[in-house]
Amino acid sequence: TVNGHRLWQSLMDLAEIGAYDDERTGLRGVNRLALTDADAAGRRQVIAWLEQAGLTVRIDRMGNIYGRREGTDPTAAPVLTGSHIDSVATAGAFDGCLGVLGGIEVVRTLDERGISTRRPIEIGVFTEEEGVRFGTDMLGSAVAAGRLSLEYAHALTDRDGRTLGGELSRTGFHGPADVRLDPPYACVECHIEQGPVLAENDVQVGVVTGVQGISWQEITIHGRAAHAGTTPTHLRADAGLAAARIGVHLRSMVDSGGYGELRATVGHLAVHPDLTNIVPARAEFTVDLRNPDDARMARAEEDLAAFLRTLEDGTPGLTLTTRRMARTAYVPFDERVQKVIARAADDHGLEHISLLSGAGHDAQEIAALCPTAMVFVRGEYDGISHNPREYSTPEACTHGVDVLATTLLRLAAQ
Amino acid sequence: TVNGHRLWQSLMDLAEIGAYDDERTGLRGVNRLALTDADAAGRRQVIAWLEQAGLTVRIDRMGNIYGRREGTDPTAAPVLTGSHIDSVATAGAFDGCLGVLGGIEVVRTLDERGISTRRPIEIGVFTEEEGVRFGTDMLGSAVAAGRLSLEYAHALTDRDGRTLGGELSRTGFHGPADVRLDPPYACVECHIEQGPVLAENDVQVGVVTGVQGISWQEITIHGRAAHAGTTPTHLRADAGLAAARIGVHLRSMVDSGGYGELRATVGHLAVHPDLTNIVPARAEFTVDLRNPDDARMARAEEDLAAFLRTLEDGTPGLTLTTRRMARTAYVPFDERVQKVIARAADDHGLEHISLLSGAGHDAQEIAALCPTAMVFVRGEYDGISHNPREYSTPEACTHGVDVLATTLLRLAAQ
Ligand SMILES: NC(=O)NCCC(=O)O
Ligand SMILES: NC(=O)NCCC(=O)O
Repeated sequence: TVNGHRLWQSLMDLAEIGAYDDERTGLRGVNRLALTDADAAGRRQVIAWLEQAGLTVRIDRMGNIYGRREGTDPTAAPVLTGSHIDSVATAGAFDGCLGVLGGIEVVRTLDERGISTRRPIEIGVFTEEEGVRFGTDMLGSAVAAGRLSLEYAHALTDRDGRTLGGELSRTGFHGPADVRLDPPYACVECHIEQGPVLAENDVQVGVVTGVQGISWQEITIHGRAAHAGTTPTHLRADAGLAAARIGVHLRSMVDSGGYGELRATVGHLAVHPDLTNIVPARAEFTVDLRNPDDARMARAEEDLAAFLRTLEDGTPGLTLTTRRMARTAYVPFDERVQKVIARAADDHGLEHISLLSGAGHDAQEIAALCPTAMVFVRGEYDGISHNPREYSTPEACTHGVDVLATTLLRLAAQ
Repeated sequence: TVNGHRLWQSLMDLAEIGAYDDERTGLRGVNRLALTDADAAGRRQVIAWLEQAGLTVRIDRMGNIYGRREGTDPTAAPVLTGSHIDSVATAGAFDGCLGVLGGIEVVRTLDERGISTRRPIEIGVFTEEEGVRFGTDMLGSAVAAGRLSLEYAHALTDRDGRTLGGELSRTGFHGPADVRLDPPYACVECHIEQGPVLAENDVQVGVVTGVQGISWQEITIHGRAAHAGTTPTHLRADAGLAAARIGVHLRSMVDSGGYGELRATVGHLAVHPDLTNIVPARAEFTVDLRNPDDARMARAEEDLAAFLRTLEDGTPGLTLTTRRMARTAYVPFDERVQKVIARAADDHGLEHISLLSGAGHDAQEIAALCPTAMVFVRGEYDGISHNPREYSTPEACTHGVDVLATTLLRLAAQ
């Protein structure tokens, strides 16, 4: 078993980088958006830990960081673990970090015990997993796996128009290593669940069977600025009202039950000119859809598109445009790796269940290259995440990394 | 009749101050929010014109500017005209400016013809009529008329937390004159209609019978930030969705017909943390209601408040707070002044109709001090306003100021 105290200490130390005092919750949150100064500081800390653990560090052209512990067989493909340390703007200490620091803790433990493995073990730290700064999630791992191109990624911009490529250079993380990853032998990522399922089932760890589909798009509505007091209702082309109708319609699609386990969120929304007595001329917002069923996801997207056309046709002066930000299908994880994880949990005497991931993860991209699965760690407070209240107990974290360690050892021995 | 060419030239000159190129319309717009540098530059230009016209200028503690042309009777109360030159962020050249520059054009014409009046004529230029920077409209005139206190006004803040009092000092418009206006003999304001009624009736000028009630409030919804992918729908407290529901509900209240001529607008809306994969923790938006009927306005406000309570009660974790920004009742204008305006229009051979104002105006505040009414000038394109497309023809502007001139002459002779 790993050193849970040391693991916890690294989690708390890393959480100080980009920390802020959250007004609403009264808690200390983390704001470490990808490739900001805070993220760069976090990366430097992680690199220092990787090097202290004796790993060989390389950085690729997407800013993905890899730390490698050699195996005894110089010809064997490595077993990959890791995750990300970028965060949303209102984050906790665990999302992503547990997978990276858990990987480091495994290596520290192996070193202490003088354990060597046949295969190398690599820890990956992927760029812009959250997708909230540059608009596409799992970006670094998607480029490493070859699903998205380096050019596409480098050209993405944040809301201030800064490109990802420019921010890589600015922060010094535009590395020399080739971005396309040579297929590892297998990949295992440890991550907090970020949902309520493990708690509801009263278990500490979960074996992840796959990741549901994710659909992100940005919708821009152009209407007509007009005076709030004088403009008769029938003459309005109210972009803000149209956005509100879409938000309400999305929830009614979810509530209808007609799209299976669909979830829908409007997380970003801005109106222009954004003044009390002016009918909004423009509204811009994001739609985040999730569905474990690809056919139902496609139908939800089509029906949303049809609703947009109806709105447009029904309101003279209103035009709607959509831009695709990110799209992944349902990704099933490898059954053999899931079995290794389940057996490791059994060996540690931990009850476990199998479950699907509601969130996207780097492992789902690596799954295109090699057999892959994930270990989930239980979260408190209904598993709330992307919120400073995000919390997993030291015990739950240790249990998850124990399972990760045993899984990595077994896979690296193969 | 006044010099329409000179009037038009002043309108175009003033519109250069705070001008911007509007991307959406391809037109040149005006952005001269109250007490910004652009507004201060506009004020200095207007003061120069007032002084060139021989008027005595005074500035009060609200930054309201008055230019006074003496009459022949030193004991007679003045006739007041004027309006405002602050604008919304996406404005045209006419809103407010026509009333100020029209007043100056009247004085220039009287001077050219060597006409003196028994009563003084004063031109008022009021601060923050739009209400979009500091949150309360008709602010300068409301303080001058005694409806709102100077302390209340000075303490109002913009979105960056700057106080109105501080901005008055910064721009040099915290004047020495007493803010409470001595009751004028009468008041007439000339303004663009900002609506479609004059065009629909194919007349150039209107006699304004009053101003409908205005209700502004800011609603803040606190929910809970949560992960868009993992958080089951029933566990969400989505502040953005609640805001959308309120926007849609407001329109259904309007469409129901149950509140008479109610108009409702959500012009400002912001969500936090405003990121794609986070259920909004907070939404803040404004509700602008208009109604010519005070009882129906009160009922609309009550029913909205009840809807807010229902939303709050129906969604665990959601709290809603409202803040009153501005509130005016229906203001009827003086019938005698309306008759003087109608007769002046007849004398100029102009067809006219009587109509209610959909927008708030400084004259409605001055109406508490003296007999008051307004002259409306027709706008093109359905009278669109608070938009760079706002446009009234040179002829329409000249006709309106001709009517203003004759009305002022008659009232100043009484
Ligand atoms: N795990 C996680 O929060 N990933 C970000 C991508 C997503 O929104 O699912
Ligand atoms: N005339 C005008 O636009 N006034 C601003 C106050 C309002 O919104 O009615």
